[in-house]
This record gives sequence, structure tokens and C-alpha cells, in this order.
Amino acid sequence: MTYCVGMRLDRGLVFMSDTRTNAGVDNISTFRKMFTFEEAGERFITILTAGNLATTQAVISMLEERTKAPAERSPSIMDAPSMFQVARLVGQTLREVIAANAETGQRADTAFNATLIVGGQIADSPPRLFMVYPEGNFIEAGEDTPYFQIGETKYGRPILVRAYEPDMSFEAAVKLLLVSFDSTIKANLSVGLPLDLQLYEADSCKQGLSRRIDAEDPYFQAISTGWGSALKRAFDSLPDITL
Amino acid sequence: MTYCVGMRLDRGLVFMSDTRTNAGVDNISTFRKMFTFEEAGERFITILTAGNLATTQAVISMLEERTKAPAERSPSIMDAPSMFQVARLVGQTLREVIAANAETGQRADTAFNATLIVGGQIADSPPRLFMVYPEGNFIEAGEDTPYFQIGETKYGRPILVRAYEPDMSFEAAVKLLLVSFDSTIKANLSVGLPLDLQLYEADSCKQGLSRRIDAEDPYFQAISTGWGSALKRAFDSLPDITL
Repeated sequence: MTYCVGMRLDRGLVFMSDTRTNAGVDNISTFRKMFTFEEAGERFITILTAGNLATTQAVISMLEERTKAPAERSPSIMDAPSMFQVARLVGQTLREVIAANAETGQRADTAFNATLIVGGQIADSPPRLFMVYPEGNFIEAGEDTPYFQIGETKYGRPILVRAYEPDMSFEAAVKLLLVSFDSTIKANLSVGLPLDLQLYEADSCKQGLSRRIDAEDPYFQAISTGWGSALKRAFDSLPDITL
Repeated sequence: MTYCVGMRLDRGLVFMSDTRTNAGVDNISTFRKMFTFEEAGERFITILTAGNLATTQAVISMLEERTKAPAERSPSIMDAPSMFQVARLVGQTLREVIAANAETGQRADTAFNATLIVGGQIADSPPRLFMVYPEGNFIEAGEDTPYFQIGETKYGRPILVRAYEPDMSFEAAVKLLLVSFDSTIKANLSVGLPLDLQLYEADSCKQGLSRRIDAEDPYFQAISTGWGSALKRAFDSLPDITL
């Protein structure tokens, strides 16, 4: 499994992903699930991936190749005129990869499916955030649903629902995501450290702070142990029932 | 879906279940998923059910009929000499019901499967808590895993992992379960109020406090709104990252 979150804030976009992949519980590996595409000052795009690793790696490779090989640059996400067109292109590529594998026949237990989060900004348009389905279609985050989760989404959802604010700072958003990821990691073996963090400042059209957070990271440790005690205090502060 | 928890404490056992059943999102109903069997002073047994409603209702009816009709009282969970035998009998009944339906053929989208939590005490033995699988086999809660969840278990798990203590009072345990259920209800439409609560005091061998908690329940409202603010305060109390 996997856990990735893409979040829309007034200040920009925040992305976080774990790095654990597994085929069963006895075959785990570490792979990056966050990919960025930049033309500084003009566009910045982040893609988060969940699902079949062969599928997501093929999708990213195809997108990168289309980015790099000038002869094949159409359609390329570096040329697409809008984030909507970027999402469409990513969706088409995802659908193509899944279809190509499905033709050979499904022999493994697991499906070739994958789900992606695509977010970023192209100059002169506002930042946008999409979730792309295996079928290639997609939805966009708005004010009512300002973040998307993919992978193992349930454990980390209650704190997002309760603490997210659109006007929160990047610092608070990173804290919120770390709490959400820590809750998931504590409850589920298929999500694991290190985590990748990517910030994108609205209207900068270039890569913001990017950081890998591992188990030795002092801030992650402070959040992980601090959240346990803070949660206990919050719990104790609630009134007891009269039985 | 469904959400039920059975919990082992030093003081006894605590059970909570929701009442929402659904066949799709456009066909929801309210059904009790908690069932108790008592011979005061001799034994007290609680069963929580998750899964196909026809299956769980059939299992409970068969167990009740075996309880009530003297001619058929063997094997009956009211005669079983130990909680282990009770769990075995419940598991056999569950497997029989699933097998009987499966013979006719699986035509619906959903499986006939169900999972049960069985807990209680029979005089002269300690209280015991089991989770019974659709195959009829079962596992018992111990010190390392002192509670079982069935149904929609993920949203409500992080707080259980963090706040459960074996020596907590019934009052604290009910508070913990309400927080866990409230987090689940807020995140998932397939779990809904009212909730059923059952306490069992160790070595009493009779029914303890039993209560139905609905949306108007003032304590549930206090927990539901209070937990949101307490969580926000806990979150704010954590240090911010330096970016």
C-alpha cells in the first residue's frame, strides 16, 4: 500500500508521500512516489502515485521521456497550456499503461491499477490540484474538498477532517500531514518512512522547499512522541460519562 | 458497513456497536448488532456482528432458538461449559449459515460473509473475548491485543492505539469508544447512530449497564464537539517545524 496527500492552501500546495512498497508483507521495498516537473518561472508540477509500482513507474517514465525527447514533445506535460490539460495527459498515459498490461492478461493477484494526485501551477493561471483515476478521468480539489488522499487513506483522515484550515501556514500544514502520516504508520505496516515533502508557494511557478524526512528526523520524532501525549491530554480533558 | 468494538479491561468487558446497515448508499436501515445472552449469576455473553445482515440475523436466531427450545438445547451456548466452547459453537453456526447460502449460489454483488465478536464470562472462569471469522475459526484477545474491532475499523483505530490502558475505568473506556466511533461516523457514511453500549463487570456473571446512545444524547454531543476542539488544542500544542 501507500499513503500520499496533496493539499490546497491559500498560500499554495503541499504534498507528502511515503516510500514503502510491498508485494505481500514479506517483500517490502523503498521507492519514491513523488515526482516533480519544473520550468522555473513558467510551471511547476508535482505527481504523487499509489497503486501498482510497475504501472506508476511506467507512467512517470513516459511522462519524463515526453518531457525530455524533443521529437516526441507533443503531447508533453511541459507544453500543455493548462493544468487541466496536464491532468488529461497524465490520465491518458495512465489509462494507456494499464490497458497495455491488461492486454497481456492479468496473471498476478493484484490489479495493474494506480491512482495519482497531480498538482501545480502554470503561469497566469491559479494553482490547481487533481486526483486521477485508473480510467484516466479525474476530479479537481475545490473549497469543499481541498485535499486528496490516495492509498491507505482511512487512519489519517480524522485529523485532516478536524484540523485542516485553508488559511493555515506551511508550517502548520506540514505538522498536520506529519500527524496524519504518523497515525497511519503506527496502525499499518504497508505505509512506512522515509517521507517526501514538497511545498509549492502560490504564483512562484518554481519548486519550493523539498525535503526527505526519515525516522531520525528530530522534528518527526518530536511530532510522533508529542502527538501521543497531546492526544492523551486531549482525551483526558473531555468530561467523563456518568454511568 | 458497520463498526463494532469489544474491549478487555481489568475491570471487565466493554462492547459498543453502531446500528447502520446499507445495501448501497441509497438503501440504509437501522438494525441492532449487539445481542446478549444471560443466566444471571452463572453466565453472561455478548455478541457483536458485522457483515451480511441475513447471515448475522440467521446466526443470532439459530443461537437464540437453541437457547430457547429445550429439545434442541444441545449444543447451546447456554449449556457450553466454557467461553472457548461458546466461541466454537458460534463459529460453527456462522460457518453453517454461510455454507447453506453459498450452496444456493452467490448471485448478489456482496458476499454472505460475516465476522463476530464474542465476549463474556461463565462462572469460575475469567472473562474472555474472541473474534470469530467467517470460516468458523477464531482468535482470543490477550494482553498484547486487548480489543477487537470489526467492520469499518480504520478511522477509529489510531485513538484506540494511543489511549487504551488495561486499567482504565468503565467511564474512560466509554469515552474512548465514543471518540473512536465519532471519528468513524464523521468520516464514513456507512457507520451511523444510534450506538449500543454494553458493560460487563468482571466476575458479576450478569448483565451490566446497557444503554442506547442516539444523536440527542447530551454526553455524545459533548464528546463529539469537545473532541474537535480538544484535538485542535492538542494539534496547536505541538511545535511548528522550521522550514
